[in-house]
Amino acid sequence: MTYLDHAATTPMLPEAVEAMTAELGRLGNPSSLHSAGRRARRVVEESREIIADVFDARPSEVIFTGGGTEADNLAVKGIYWARRAADPARTRVLVGAVEHHAVLDAAQWLADHQGARVEHIPVDSLGRVDPDVVREMIGPSGGADIALITVMWANNEVGTVQPVAELAALAREHDIPFHTDAVQAAAQLPVSFAGSGVHSLALSGHKLGGPLGVGVLLLAKGIDPVPVLHGGGQERDVRSGTLDTPAIAGLAAAVQAAAAQREEHARRLTALRDRLIACVLDAVPDAVLNGDPVNRLPGNAHLSFPGCEGDALLMLLDARGIACSTGSACSAGVAQPSHVLLAMGASPERARGSLRFSLGHTSTEDDVTALAEAIGPVVERARRAGLS
Amino acid sequence: MTYLDHAATTPMLPEAVEAMTAELGRLGNPSSLHSAGRRARRVVEESREIIADVFDARPSEVIFTGGGTEADNLAVKGIYWARRAADPARTRVLVGAVEHHAVLDAAQWLADHQGARVEHIPVDSLGRVDPDVVREMIGPSGGADIALITVMWANNEVGTVQPVAELAALAREHDIPFHTDAVQAAAQLPVSFAGSGVHSLALSGHKLGGPLGVGVLLLAKGIDPVPVLHGGGQERDVRSGTLDTPAIAGLAAAVQAAAAQREEHARRLTALRDRLIACVLDAVPDAVLNGDPVNRLPGNAHLSFPGCEGDALLMLLDARGIACSTGSACSAGVAQPSHVLLAMGASPERARGSLRFSLGHTSTEDDVTALAEAIGPVVERARRAGLS
Repeated sequence: MTYLDHAATTPMLPEAVEAMTAELGRLGNPSSLHSAGRRARRVVEESREIIADVFDARPSEVIFTGGGTEADNLAVKGIYWARRAADPARTRVLVGAVEHHAVLDAAQWLADHQGARVEHIPVDSLGRVDPDVVREMIGPSGGADIALITVMWANNEVGTVQPVAELAALAREHDIPFHTDAVQAAAQLPVSFAGSGVHSLALSGHKLGGPLGVGVLLLAKGIDPVPVLHGGGQERDVRSGTLDTPAIAGLAAAVQAAAAQREEHARRLTALRDRLIACVLDAVPDAVLNGDPVNRLPGNAHLSFPGCEGDALLMLLDARGIACSTGSACSAGVAQPSHVLLAMGASPERARGSLRFSLGHTSTEDDVTALAEAIGPVVERARRAGLS
Repeated sequence: MTYLDHAATTPMLPEAVEAMTAELGRLGNPSSLHSAGRRARRVVEESREIIADVFDARPSEVIFTGGGTEADNLAVKGIYWARRAADPARTRVLVGAVEHHAVLDAAQWLADHQGARVEHIPVDSLGRVDPDVVREMIGPSGGADIALITVMWANNEVGTVQPVAELAALAREHDIPFHTDAVQAAAQLPVSFAGSGVHSLALSGHKLGGPLGVGVLLLAKGIDPVPVLHGGGQERDVRSGTLDTPAIAGLAAAVQAAAAQREEHARRLTALRDRLIACVLDAVPDAVLNGDPVNRLPGNAHLSFPGCEGDALLMLLDARGIACSTGSACSAGVAQPSHVLLAMGASPERARGSLRFSLGHTSTEDDVTALAEAIGPVVERARRAGLS
């Protein structure tokens, strides 16, 4: 199989599998006081230190969650509730128009049921948020009515990288908490929590070569979201639920292994990606690259194929052993065209006629060659079918 | 080590480890449309069928979550929000006084911030909820102002089993949704979703010999909770987040293996437990068994040791290689006496001087013997230290 869907989920790194399977055979709830519990707790705390170190955070800033979606929900809802409780005037939430649904739908629910006034931050045709636009949206109130601004580090569909540090500085200037969904970025870009200045940052295990079912929310001191999950009071009372020692150990191992080779990895992926884009444009001359041609995720290639349905292309490629996606895996099978492409000004037709090819740590030149050979005939066949 | 803390977490069954590790090496997001995604989806759906079958539910009634705490939060908050949205008069929530914090604290948050009127259902000195008391609490309104009743199947600290079917019938009679936390019960008692008549039932993977980081909410048709986690719309839009195929496969394998030997397992644990209780009472004649002496979890023994601090006993036993707990692992290290024992009418001193010994699938006669030999000297030493 030619797997070009690493943005949906990427294989676990061998180091992560090893660390996780070792823990599956061991015992102990990290909250237990006896020695078995304390052993598990040590594994959790060592993992916390590794993850903090890689992302330039303090161990006390690391909150383990059940995944990226939960981390985003905790940030968006939790910070909104906390800020509004501290100051009832803070009801506005500024949300990037091309955010993942975990952010977008969490914010929309706050608008529909929790009194939030949600405003979408527009993007340009390359999917970029302009800090000047955000400054204007903050407006004459100076942000005193804003509970949260949230803009993702890099887009999961088209790969556009946002000026997160600049946006975070702007938010700090106005004393507004700033959250970023770095689920896609963290696997391929240097992500520094301290360096970026964001208040809150979401990570997902299985996008990083770690296990599914685990994520992280990095939370700056003083940002105390209201919990989304109440219960035993784990994770400083911010996130209840038994800590998943095996998954946490696996995530730390993945993060550590990936960090050691991140630069080389990014260079390799960028070269592969650029060759992939060139091959596709060569085979299908009227295909169009979506997203920022320069400032994009090293592993992301997202293209529109005029006159085609993305789903049809996907299935034809699948029949040739090539796995890719039309956009977010979560929305696979959904009839609506991508909100990301629509926000970038694409027509519904162009949005629907798109494919995302995403590369990762197991990607090879052969993968690109396989796609290069298949894409021309596949697009031609889809177009013939569409005309008949 | 003598591990007498299976209620905190129990070792994974070999079948679960095998099923899970097999999936760790495989690829595919179950939401992806390509063949790798469809393969993962098949694993998820086969697991869903196995779990549904064991607990007498329909596959469509199985919602995968990130754990028991999340399942409880989804039920309590989600059903409250949904019912109140359908009928603004439904603001009352009746909650068992001895519920796990995942239920109790979720309900308390609804009371503090979401307009709920939470009332605690009292228990008797054995920790039992009386259906007549609940009938009286429903009151002259006939339940038209109640959004949810929630009473756990079996208590996690003292092991008392509740008359869940009777309570569910009462709730149905008044058209009130009924949720039960069956996290502890499902490992040792026959739990039938359809047979019990409950509307909603929470399970936790790692209490069942499955993995950490995965849980299940069984949801009867027509009970549509508002999501706690918004996003990609997985699990019929009730619970967003990438499905954790390896953990789900591991959970299904555990549930299936446990179901095949449940009766024999319960018989064996009951005999071990009764011997454990007898040995402890023999060694420490003034120790007192807490909870229902008959109608209790097969693996649970919870005793108070007058004149002792539970934490001190726990550490002394730990030094002799015996792992147990003072109550819920989540609350370990918390200074407050157990809300469960206080609700049962115990004094704070008695509550603080208690230990929970919980048995599971790896427990042996030797474990009981080890405790029987240690408990007398340990209690004596704790009492001497207390007096000095």
